[in-house]
Amino acid sequence: MGMTRQECAALDEADGLADIRHRFALPEGVIYLDGNSLGPMPRHVPARIRHVVETEWSDGLVRSWNDAGWIEAPRRVSARIARLIGATEDEVAVADSTSVNLFKLLVAAARLRPDRSVLLYARDDFPTDRYIVESAAEVLGLDAVCAGPDPDALIGALDERVAVLALTHVDYRSGALKAMPRFTAAAHAAGALILWDLCHSAGVLDVGLDAAHADFAVGCGYKYLNGGPGAPAFAYVAGRHLGVVRQPLTGWLGHAEPFAFAREFIAAPGIDRLQCGTPPMLSLLALESALEAFDGVDLAAIRFKSRALGDVFIRLFGERLGAHGFTLASPRDGELRGSQVSLAHPRGYAVIQSLIARGIIGDFRPPDILRFGLAPLYVRYTDVFDVVAAMDEIMARGEWNQPRFLSPKTVT
Amino acid sequence: MGMTRQECAALDEADGLADIRHRFALPEGVIYLDGNSLGPMPRHVPARIRHVVETEWSDGLVRSWNDAGWIEAPRRVSARIARLIGATEDEVAVADSTSVNLFKLLVAAARLRPDRSVLLYARDDFPTDRYIVESAAEVLGLDAVCAGPDPDALIGALDERVAVLALTHVDYRSGALKAMPRFTAAAHAAGALILWDLCHSAGVLDVGLDAAHADFAVGCGYKYLNGGPGAPAFAYVAGRHLGVVRQPLTGWLGHAEPFAFAREFIAAPGIDRLQCGTPPMLSLLALESALEAFDGVDLAAIRFKSRALGDVFIRLFGERLGAHGFTLASPRDGELRGSQVSLAHPRGYAVIQSLIARGIIGDFRPPDILRFGLAPLYVRYTDVFDVVAAMDEIMARGEWNQPRFLSPKTVT
Repeated sequence: MGMTRQECAALDEADGLADIRHRFALPEGVIYLDGNSLGPMPRHVPARIRHVVETEWSDGLVRSWNDAGWIEAPRRVSARIARLIGATEDEVAVADSTSVNLFKLLVAAARLRPDRSVLLYARDDFPTDRYIVESAAEVLGLDAVCAGPDPDALIGALDERVAVLALTHVDYRSGALKAMPRFTAAAHAAGALILWDLCHSAGVLDVGLDAAHADFAVGCGYKYLNGGPGAPAFAYVAGRHLGVVRQPLTGWLGHAEPFAFAREFIAAPGIDRLQCGTPPMLSLLALESALEAFDGVDLAAIRFKSRALGDVFIRLFGERLGAHGFTLASPRDGELRGSQVSLAHPRGYAVIQSLIARGIIGDFRPPDILRFGLAPLYVRYTDVFDVVAAMDEIMARGEWNQPRFLSPKTVT
Repeated sequence: MGMTRQECAALDEADGLADIRHRFALPEGVIYLDGNSLGPMPRHVPARIRHVVETEWSDGLVRSWNDAGWIEAPRRVSARIARLIGATEDEVAVADSTSVNLFKLLVAAARLRPDRSVLLYARDDFPTDRYIVESAAEVLGLDAVCAGPDPDALIGALDERVAVLALTHVDYRSGALKAMPRFTAAAHAAGALILWDLCHSAGVLDVGLDAAHADFAVGCGYKYLNGGPGAPAFAYVAGRHLGVVRQPLTGWLGHAEPFAFAREFIAAPGIDRLQCGTPPMLSLLALESALEAFDGVDLAAIRFKSRALGDVFIRLFGERLGAHGFTLASPRDGELRGSQVSLAHPRGYAVIQSLIARGIIGDFRPPDILRFGLAPLYVRYTDVFDVVAAMDEIMARGEWNQPRFLSPKTVT
């Protein structure tokens, strides 16, 4: 006999993170498995943003840069994110978008290997990462080379021409997790530097950048960090590179003395040199507020639950969905999987639409991937049960076959 | 006899823009002349942001990208800004910060002049502009050259090596206004392209990019556009360049089909190719909402009042402040002046602090500049009278000489 909803309820009962869910304002009747696209809103964010807009901006005006501490906000947010990615707070900058930060760090990394000519990336990584690697290579007069996706092929491509290896930590379609220590060590053995994209891992895994001796990383504020739509991104530079790293977007906030308005650009001594222009303060302060949802939450507990949710999902998939033509598009081994389970189905788009109509929000990635983000802070074991049961029912009843579910529109 | 407060009140009475001031939530007892640092909050912004946070994000979640129209927000904001800078809406992108957009457009412009080796900029322009020009030149292997500040010297430096001339439209210290048609024509006569920084002119002048045949421009959302702290910036590309311009920050939102997640980067056919990553939506939607303050306001009326406010300020300065050791740091001729009057005084820092203590907010720029932004949408002629009268009084009473006003701290 298969796993029951009662068994899942018992897992929720025993879940040490179960109470954290109450920190989020999840709408009634919705099961939200799309935190890898946009995280839900922590409950305390609206009061903070009201204060920022209606008091700090409205009454404080320009004085709030000092009086309300806006000018230090990027550093405060950095400290909160650093803990979640295994870094110290002086190694993390919060600024701009993931893509912009990627460009900064690719150029910075290439400048540390001036005798090398290749920016290497993985064949199946997120499109923006590919586009930016190719563009950075063009600007610098270097070669962008892709290899993999097989790990051995990727590592085999690390030769003496490679300046930087840019890798996505967790694949945005399959949820496959790349072994950070292994790839980092391989890059270093070849004399290259490594740059990790943590968009789909920060906030749901026990990311250990310092422990893996990573060089650089970027990541997203609006997915599993729940910072709100388009929240600022982050950039990590290992402490050993901080004194020498030179990034190309040399805006005034990256200056050693931004308010001196000096003629010459002198980079800030530490991680602040990753800053460029004035940060979008409403979005940045929403991210700061949202990160309080992680207060007191242990990374080991997050990783334990992210894996357990995936294991339950895959077990239920095996028991109930294989017969409907679904196949598993994620690694079965929890060690190799991020906090996500993806299924493939030729009718994937219509099935996702049917689920959304039932209040179960996952998302679809072409050509046939149904993607379910399992954020340990607010997803329950019973949610996982319910989504699999719903798919079983949708297929058994032919619900996906309604005309309104069949025509693709813009999806995010 | 000098100009009286009654005469200024009569000018307010006759001012066709006087009612627009009620669109702003200006705190009681404050005269705000620092819109060139951070614009004040339009009254209707809080309700919009509450809805964005507490309904669109909280309840709509990822569905709001389509259902609440987030995905089209950059284009909606572009259309509003285009009107204020003399462009068509398909020539303006809203994205990232001014500095990041400057980098994009400098690289894009240089690529249109592949046989030329110099990025030219003006000696006294805003520091970020200098830093980014120098960095873009370094990345591209070109030379950054500065000339001026004298207009003839600047134009004289335009030779056959110059790919791009990057100029600040209104000087951030003096408020001096560069003649856009003259410099643009001179750049073109030399075969170069021109890039204007409109940070201190968009929203307070009748900027005419298309009329001047400008090539590129960038500008700020949080100064005279009143979009809130760190609001997204804008970038302008003249229609004739749209089909060929290639910028280096090739993030997914600049792709022709962002949601296809294609392997190859194919730039969006029009201005959307200036986009990079996901925009900070709270800050972007605050900017959109704030721009409604310009509804129905004519650019000619804005320019008329910006000049008249400055003329009144300078007349009152001549009558009341010359004897206290102030000198005029802005052009006396309204034709050559942006929407700002700056004075110089060796005790400038202490005088600005004394004014702030009286609720009159201007700002200080080293070494000795007192800067007063005269935004026609909310500054009154009587405000101008009151600030000059206050400075007269502060000097006559020696108020600036209080210890609490004498020690510089961080200023923004």
